[in-house]
Amino acid sequence: GVWLKESGTRSVLNRVPPLLTDLYQFTMACTYWRAGKHNEPAVFELFFRDNPFGGGFSLIAGLSDCLLFLQKFAFSDDDVEYLRSILPAGTDAAFFSYLKELDCSAVSVSAVPEGSVVFARVPLLEVSGPLAVVQLLKTSLLCLVNYASLVCSNAARFRLAAGPRRRLMEMGLRRAQGPDGGLTASRYTYIGGFDLTSNALAGRLFGIPVAGTMAHSYVTSFSCLEEVWPQTLVPCGGGGPIDFICLVKGWLGRVCQLLGSKTSLVREGELAAFLSYAIAYPQNFLPVIDSYSVSCSGLLCFCAVALALYELQYRPLGVRLDSGDLSRQSLEVRRVFKECSQHFSVPQFESLIIVGTNSISEQSLAELNKKDNEIDVVGVGTHLVTCMRQPSLGCVYKLIEVRGRPRMKMSEDPEKSTLPGRKSVYRLLDADGHPQMDLICLSEEPAPKAAISLNCFPLRLNKTLQTVTPAQVTSLRLDVFTCGQITFPLNSASESRERAQLSLQTLHPHHKRLQEPHDYTVALSERLHSLVSDMTKGNSKGSNFLLSN
Amino acid sequence: GVWLKESGTRSVLNRVPPLLTDLYQFTMACTYWRAGKHNEPAVFELFFRDNPFGGGFSLIAGLSDCLLFLQKFAFSDDDVEYLRSILPAGTDAAFFSYLKELDCSAVSVSAVPEGSVVFARVPLLEVSGPLAVVQLLKTSLLCLVNYASLVCSNAARFRLAAGPRRRLMEMGLRRAQGPDGGLTASRYTYIGGFDLTSNALAGRLFGIPVAGTMAHSYVTSFSCLEEVWPQTLVPCGGGGPIDFICLVKGWLGRVCQLLGSKTSLVREGELAAFLSYAIAYPQNFLPVIDSYSVSCSGLLCFCAVALALYELQYRPLGVRLDSGDLSRQSLEVRRVFKECSQHFSVPQFESLIIVGTNSISEQSLAELNKKDNEIDVVGVGTHLVTCMRQPSLGCVYKLIEVRGRPRMKMSEDPEKSTLPGRKSVYRLLDADGHPQMDLICLSEEPAPKAAISLNCFPLRLNKTLQTVTPAQVTSLRLDVFTCGQITFPLNSASESRERAQLSLQTLHPHHKRLQEPHDYTVALSERLHSLVSDMTKGNSKGSNFLLSN
Repeated sequence: GVWLKESGTRSVLNRVPPLLTDLYQFTMACTYWRAGKHNEPAVFELFFRDNPFGGGFSLIAGLSDCLLFLQKFAFSDDDVEYLRSILPAGTDAAFFSYLKELDCSAVSVSAVPEGSVVFARVPLLEVSGPLAVVQLLKTSLLCLVNYASLVCSNAARFRLAAGPRRRLMEMGLRRAQGPDGGLTASRYTYIGGFDLTSNALAGRLFGIPVAGTMAHSYVTSFSCLEEVWPQTLVPCGGGGPIDFICLVKGWLGRVCQLLGSKTSLVREGELAAFLSYAIAYPQNFLPVIDSYSVSCSGLLCFCAVALALYELQYRPLGVRLDSGDLSRQSLEVRRVFKECSQHFSVPQFESLIIVGTNSISEQSLAELNKKDNEIDVVGVGTHLVTCMRQPSLGCVYKLIEVRGRPRMKMSEDPEKSTLPGRKSVYRLLDADGHPQMDLICLSEEPAPKAAISLNCFPLRLNKTLQTVTPAQVTSLRLDVFTCGQITFPLNSASESRERAQLSLQTLHPHHKRLQEPHDYTVALSERLHSLVSDMTKGNSKGSNFLLSN
Repeated sequence: GVWLKESGTRSVLNRVPPLLTDLYQFTMACTYWRAGKHNEPAVFELFFRDNPFGGGFSLIAGLSDCLLFLQKFAFSDDDVEYLRSILPAGTDAAFFSYLKELDCSAVSVSAVPEGSVVFARVPLLEVSGPLAVVQLLKTSLLCLVNYASLVCSNAARFRLAAGPRRRLMEMGLRRAQGPDGGLTASRYTYIGGFDLTSNALAGRLFGIPVAGTMAHSYVTSFSCLEEVWPQTLVPCGGGGPIDFICLVKGWLGRVCQLLGSKTSLVREGELAAFLSYAIAYPQNFLPVIDSYSVSCSGLLCFCAVALALYELQYRPLGVRLDSGDLSRQSLEVRRVFKECSQHFSVPQFESLIIVGTNSISEQSLAELNKKDNEIDVVGVGTHLVTCMRQPSLGCVYKLIEVRGRPRMKMSEDPEKSTLPGRKSVYRLLDADGHPQMDLICLSEEPAPKAAISLNCFPLRLNKTLQTVTPAQVTSLRLDVFTCGQITFPLNSASESRERAQLSLQTLHPHHKRLQEPHDYTVALSERLHSLVSDMTKGNSKGSNFLLSN
């Protein structure tokens, strides 16, 4: 893995400031400090309760941002003065001196690597360190993992819906939650399987391939052919400048004749816009063709300009459709491309790219795939970056151990209870190499072994004992941050993207299905299951009942 | 208005970098430049097509961020080198020199002030300047206005659903789109009518009141009374330290006796957590009481600690409920508060605050209001910041004029067509001072006058002519940025919040209804309506049909 320089991964935010957290973390930290509990060794874990979008899996992301945040975690004097002004009057002054000294030098983290396939209820990050410090980290870590993982998982679903052949472009910056929301979306949708982004800054910061076509406003800004300048183009192979307007007008006549269209319905401004673009970018001509009418104007203008470009040995790219029925229109466009290709003997013309970009959702993409269509590249904005179907993953960060003693939150709502104690997490693979179960054990338990049967209690299946014999066993989490030091490569976006694709490949198709996937089994070891039972009954070392008062 | 220093409004982001835009803005700008059109005077306008959340209105927000962005807009040498690396090979080298010189010194903006009530289809910002520059600004301006306005409008709906009495606290940082998404949410939900945020950095940057209670992990980190330290508390009025544990144990016995509860079911860890917190913050005691069981443990511990605090002349604040049926539980909690208040003769005890925070949505808040309940403060996270019901406002930025000539985008989809020409927007008020119509005119038209009838064409009502006589007329937009200078006060969050409340107050209740509101009328002047008709038919000065080739 490449160790990125910090400036290479996030330069818009100087850094994620440690004040970016909920106020109550500070009052609680103060109370710990007051009670002398602030340095007690404590362990939190981060997980989510349900796979998003009704799916069977998720991808984890945001880890590099977490590591950089932890590495730099420290309060400036200004931060502390601000806290002094908002914490309750009477907060012990020495607490603020304590805050000024804080850092993550006593914090360690184990985590599932970014881009891995993960499942609900599995502890993805384990954060250990002094109680007050690991409490203070809570909101910031959740903020960094929650949306990153959600939008990465959403992208993976679009990738599955699109099939491997079609290229996917993220173009959601204008619909994201502000500048950083947009950057986060570009980075993590790329990791989830998108190929391109429209966001130039994301390209610069994260090395994501950037692409773009043309806006309607560009087309409508032109009104007549007199606005085209220069009016000539030098052939690709060299030679004197050719009057390109004249050349294109000739082609327009021939195209209209071939297709039985009227040149009188062609918009002069649209033709002027295409001509100007093609003269500036003869090798990158990919206009949007629905500013007025695809069939009466946009497509005809494109064909004329593109055929003229071919005549001068340039290679136009294709067209973009941004409204109406994309499937139907793409078929019509392809039919016209083929007709031009044959009639004018330009073989490449039939395989020009067709880009579709009209409020694409996972569902509309899946429906597109059911119909005949000729769309090569799909651009997705709003539905991708806002995760409209489920805009929050709902990650939580829960205390599981203090001073070596397991902790558990019981709740009126059983789904909100937590799993106590420090754990190891194993992925058990079947004989075909597919993941078959994630097993959560107490950390002091020996690791399960391949070809040895074991007993476990699947979550959510009435907790009946089950026996399983894995063909292979892998440990899911790695030590990524140890006593203040990053101990795992900060993966670049493309490295995490590669991990995501590999991880998804091993997953059995019935877990990857977008609709009604098979439930993947997440199970507790017998010992962890016993601990949960004991603590629920209140007879463990958690919080005892008050027997005397 | 207060002129905030820039560092006071957004210091997490150094600034919004001009590279934070879609790549195609650069290829289009280059084409304009190549054709010598880059300095043609052009006008874009920003609007949205539908009021969000099925509602009848929206609030505009994000304007201050836009002005700061425009003021600083310039490409660094590094930016330009990066663009050189991603723009198509063959891009004229002189274009990059041109980019290095760009700024917004020739750009002007008129806009509806932040916090104002606005409606679909009304042009909210008008941006004029050199064609290539105003084109380049597109994505960034959309990114800054879109989510800010959406989440501000969402907050206003929560405010309406909650009624004026109940206090509303935003606590969505952990579920937002990364750090800046969280900050944007805190700022703009406050403007929309929230009272408090949990986000400490938002408090610091934007002056929003910050609040917080206690997390479950805090409660479950304690297991026994030995962990409480110090164990004494000095009475508020002074005097020697009192053994607070002993005092609370006495109260716990009396509370359990009064309520017929068993002290043996009380969790020792929960009591220890509450004791420690109360000793550190005796004037700010507001624990979460559902970590184990509200009725068997949390509420009893709270009452015991709170009564002991009263005995020492402190003022505890109240409790937080975070799971289960909040209405039912709040009634039960209030009943217990009243019983303690009477039995122990502590009058203030019955009016302790009850905070509710369990996945509150606009709908659940409205339902809460239909039932009897005793919740004083509502904390909202996920549903507020993700705008789950509609996570994007769908703002667009469309070209309306070039070189003094109106421009219009026609589309296969009529809803995607635009209104051509430079405009003025007026709000017509009825005799009661309620807004009755927003009228969009061409800018060269005289302003409508109070008490003078006028003809207009409402949008979306089959465009039949309507006659209206306003009692008052106000101009909606103001000049906020003129030739590179900010010419309107950068409002603080609380100033914009005040404007939002005033603006909402004037709105007629039937437009404010959350469900099935009356449609507010947005209409075109006769002259604008004629221009639209002419350009749709293609016989205006927009893009002519190509009559000769």
